[in-house]
Amino acid sequence: MVVTYLDLVKAVDSVPYPDQSAYKTSVLEQSYVFLAHNGTPLGRILDSVADALSGEPEFVVDTTARTVQLTPADFITRNQVIASLAARWRAERRYAVLLGWRNELYTVYNPTSKAYLLIERAAAALFGVVTYGVHIVGYIPPNKLAGQPFRFWVPTRSPTKPTFPGMLDNTVAGGLGYPYGVLDTAIKECGEEAGLSEDYSESHLQPAGAVTYCYRHEYEDGLNLFQPEVEYVYDLEMSEDTVPKPTDDEVAEFRLMTADEVHAELVAGHFKPNTALVQIDFMIRHGIITPENEPNYLELLALMHRRMEYPTR
Amino acid sequence: MVVTYLDLVKAVDSVPYPDQSAYKTSVLEQSYVFLAHNGTPLGRILDSVADALSGEPEFVVDTTARTVQLTPADFITRNQVIASLAARWRAERRYAVLLGWRNELYTVYNPTSKAYLLIERAAAALFGVVTYGVHIVGYIPPNKLAGQPFRFWVPTRSPTKPTFPGMLDNTVAGGLGYPYGVLDTAIKECGEEAGLSEDYSESHLQPAGAVTYCYRHEYEDGLNLFQPEVEYVYDLEMSEDTVPKPTDDEVAEFRLMTADEVHAELVAGHFKPNTALVQIDFMIRHGIITPENEPNYLELLALMHRRMEYPTR
Repeated sequence: MVVTYLDLVKAVDSVPYPDQSAYKTSVLEQSYVFLAHNGTPLGRILDSVADALSGEPEFVVDTTARTVQLTPADFITRNQVIASLAARWRAERRYAVLLGWRNELYTVYNPTSKAYLLIERAAAALFGVVTYGVHIVGYIPPNKLAGQPFRFWVPTRSPTKPTFPGMLDNTVAGGLGYPYGVLDTAIKECGEEAGLSEDYSESHLQPAGAVTYCYRHEYEDGLNLFQPEVEYVYDLEMSEDTVPKPTDDEVAEFRLMTADEVHAELVAGHFKPNTALVQIDFMIRHGIITPENEPNYLELLALMHRRMEYPTR
Repeated sequence: MVVTYLDLVKAVDSVPYPDQSAYKTSVLEQSYVFLAHNGTPLGRILDSVADALSGEPEFVVDTTARTVQLTPADFITRNQVIASLAARWRAERRYAVLLGWRNELYTVYNPTSKAYLLIERAAAALFGVVTYGVHIVGYIPPNKLAGQPFRFWVPTRSPTKPTFPGMLDNTVAGGLGYPYGVLDTAIKECGEEAGLSEDYSESHLQPAGAVTYCYRHEYEDGLNLFQPEVEYVYDLEMSEDTVPKPTDDEVAEFRLMTADEVHAELVAGHFKPNTALVQIDFMIRHGIITPENEPNYLELLALMHRRMEYPTR
């Protein structure tokens, strides 16, 4: 089966937009707005999860307004409330998404980009809050004289990974855990996932924007959770000699692939969904995908840079 | 006065989004939806312009649904209707925006990206339809060994230009007139506005995405028109020896400016508004603006890549 780049992007930015008719049926009628104690919207909570929260003392569930409010005005208290709730639900094996428990805290931001709430990574989708990561595309620039096209260092995910086993990936990727910064996380992940030295990463990592989207994903228990996501994007110029080496068991192998080979793997659906989107962003920024060769050029760009309805970093 | 990059972007992407409360008062309550004969939304028409159209035989104005429908099912007829209407309004000096008559046709697209309607460039804002252009940033790459930062070839607009006289601009920019393609227009404009040869432009122009936004601008007659715009973005690597030469009277002079100088001119408000946005996009893609040095990094990216509510190219 062959898919288009637009299919790939829509599979990741899969939540309808407020001006589309499907927004009412598949967003408004299926979920509650998750509110901060001061009324700021922070995310989307599925109806069944809102039901579960109605018995919790620190939450106010308003079935008319369809909102769930977290009431503590204090940062530390909020974090404790969410941490103990998530731990209890995990122990009860209540939600499949919590089986992927990471022991890593994600930050939810308020409108002035300050940390408002810390939440276990695996629990973020239950509250539909915005999460953050870094994605790094390692590439070898084209050499026109030698007839060499763009090439990419593409890892295959380990066949034993719980999520997307065996699929192709961006060279390096990782979540933005509290309290690390964006560049710090990028450098750390380049070491952990590709065996690159801090010096090399620091001098070669080139920030190049971000992709933003709202992903909806159905877990094993049938819960179809909302996940607004931000992936900061870095380009990493490499050479044939800068061979990335897996240093953990997350990656099976790295292969050097030409832009044509990457294209073939993308449209065959072999890339992990959100890494396909990052790869497409790279190829647009570097003129591999052009207004002339891609009929959905403008729509790709818009959907990959979704404006978030909630405060972000 | 010093402004932020976010101020600059919001001044161009200045129409509220459907989930914001201001959308109701400043979009829904001030304008009608411009519909194709088959009901596809194509743009936004101000109430007073919708009033003027209610007397026109080829338009159906529905004051309850707040829609204006162009009825001819045939491409040629539609173009004639719009052309004769725009010419009549121009002769009557009815709308200030038509004083900038260009004798250039813009294309309005249907959902399958086919030409649906041709409209005089100056009349596009009266119907609030999406318009298209190309913007080209001519730059000299940094030379780390020589301590040279990114530099840009920045033109000053002629002091006699009717729009934004004396302001700074992208190296080259131009509208996408029917029936020219994107790259064709870029090459043509590089010749006209910077004296660059077709060969040079063709081998050096690098497509790098597009910026999309919805601009609202008040004309001399007080009409505050909607203008959704797409600007295809090209990077053009140049050298100190590739000096662009104005070949028409639109540009007063070109100056070579460092990234720091460009930053200072941007925050001083000296760039033409939508070229500021293109310059910011370049600086994000090339790692000059980073998640570390720009607090509104994510919002800039989202607002510069607005998803259009109407069909596009």
